Amino acid sequence: MSRELRFTKGQGTGNDFIVYSDPEGAFNLSAEAIAAICDRQFGVGADGVIRAIRSSRLDAGAAVLAEDASAEWFMDYRNADGSVAEMCGNGIRVYLRYLLEQGLLTAGVGDVVAIGTRVGVRRVTVHEAGFEVDLGVWRLNDGEPLVRARGLPVARPGLALNLGNPHVVVALADEEELAGVDLTRVPILDPEAPDGANIEFVVPAEPLVDSGYGRIRMRVHERGSGETLSCGTGAAAAALAVRTWAGIAAPRIWKVQVPGGVLGVRMWSEVDGEHVSLRGPAELVFDGVVGI
Amino acid sequence: MSRELRFTKGQGTGNDFIVYSDPEGAFNLSAEAIAAICDRQFGVGADGVIRAIRSSRLDAGAAVLAEDASAEWFMDYRNADGSVAEMCGNGIRVYLRYLLEQGLLTAGVGDVVAIGTRVGVRRVTVHEAGFEVDLGVWRLNDGEPLVRARGLPVARPGLALNLGNPHVVVALADEEELAGVDLTRVPILDPEAPDGANIEFVVPAEPLVDSGYGRIRMRVHERGSGETLSCGTGAAAAALAVRTWAGIAAPRIWKVQVPGGVLGVRMWSEVDGEHVSLRGPAELVFDGVVGI
Repeated sequence: MSRELRFTKGQGTGNDFIVYSDPEGAFNLSAEAIAAICDRQFGVGADGVIRAIRSSRLDAGAAVLAEDASAEWFMDYRNADGSVAEMCGNGIRVYLRYLLEQGLLTAGVGDVVAIGTRVGVRRVTVHEAGFEVDLGVWRLNDGEPLVRARGLPVARPGLALNLGNPHVVVALADEEELAGVDLTRVPILDPEAPDGANIEFVVPAEPLVDSGYGRIRMRVHERGSGETLSCGTGAAAAALAVRTWAGIAAPRIWKVQVPGGVLGVRMWSEVDGEHVSLRGPAELVFDGVVGI
Repeated sequence: MSRELRFTKGQGTGNDFIVYSDPEGAFNLSAEAIAAICDRQFGVGADGVIRAIRSSRLDAGAAVLAEDASAEWFMDYRNADGSVAEMCGNGIRVYLRYLLEQGLLTAGVGDVVAIGTRVGVRRVTVHEAGFEVDLGVWRLNDGEPLVRARGLPVARPGLALNLGNPHVVVALADEEELAGVDLTRVPILDPEAPDGANIEFVVPAEPLVDSGYGRIRMRVHERGSGETLSCGTGAAAAALAVRTWAGIAAPRIWKVQVPGGVLGVRMWSEVDGEHVSLRGPAELVFDGVVGI
């Protein structure tokens, strides 16, 4: 029997998501249904689907509530192909915007909201315009694989980092070279990454005088998706890589310009290691009803 | 002041359209608003917008009603960039589906419905599954321009045709060559087409024994849009070109497989010249509300 799904479509720097409300966990979509509604011509179109469900209603929510009992809402995120994803740096902002606008939780500027995810609790700070999510502790992966891409005359060394998902960041000479990279084909890593990787092509810019922050332009090829307008953890990886290359005196605040907008990245030390956060906008675009 | 637009999203062989109801012509969208809602990441996402308006409420509708007083509804079609478009072979089927499902007109299988467009009245026949639109009289344009595309080792001669909009059809050797053409860049025409052209790359297949119809596989680069999943007038152009090459004994019914599905093309003679029709499915996918 066909059912109706009421949803809201939202976006953050051009990463877009279908969000729907299922507090008690009564309406789990099949992988086939998710792939169908994420199709941009034959369905609604989105990079992924987020189900708003109480942490108490999901097996994966038990660990989240043990970590932080205030993490009432879980971000049940699925990729456009229907596969389960751990986290999404742009998606979590859209999710919080949705929870606030639906009245499912209440928070004001400066408040920190705990959200459950499959990699544990993520803390999101509410700002005047947008949200900032603590992505947790990052680490360098061992390796500087060579990266080959159409439009680049020679292979370039990349830097491998892990932010819950694997990234390889490659520095290019200038904006012209960045614009010339052809990301309609998957870039080649040597050695290959066993599970693939998101690959960020970056051009660091001079810091604005006395601005205190660094600036980067970035394009990204996401594993399984191709070139996208934005990748949240990719922006964080880009800033971390550029700071690693620049040395310890480099800024700890970065603005990363992606094709879909501007993201802020910040780093700070805690007892468990160096944390990195991602800040950016999130907007709800339209409401809809689709047959499943 | 921000307004709400209630719309329905529909598609035909993967060409997708936002349709909305404005019978009396009270809600004309600006080009900027159309471009914003057609954006696939920041808006609703579509190849174009169709306004359901009575022919009597538009200047362009007067000529339509003089031609056929039964053409009550006008297809006010705009491209995704906001520009006005004359007609759209896939869009008119989605439009008729919308008019029927909204109860704005009534028609059953076998009925012919007259729809107003900027190139005059178009007659659409209701079939069990889908619709068939008479695209009117076609003509060969003078010229067989050379076509260059990435992935093709040498330039190929194309055939120029006009179906209200300009097309150039190029025959390829086989499906492997068709798959290898890179349509992320605009193919080059020599001599150039002054207003550009849609370019169809086709591989004719052997007719099925006793089927009575010809078969074609096609990919298309649409001027201003890039590669698309389907182009209705392009499918008609492809069938007409292949029949022209094959000679007078060739079938007058064709199935054209595009990436988004299968379209039927039929040709017949009338006193004003040879007509060509396009047949295919049309589905409404979801309803929504978006702020403008």
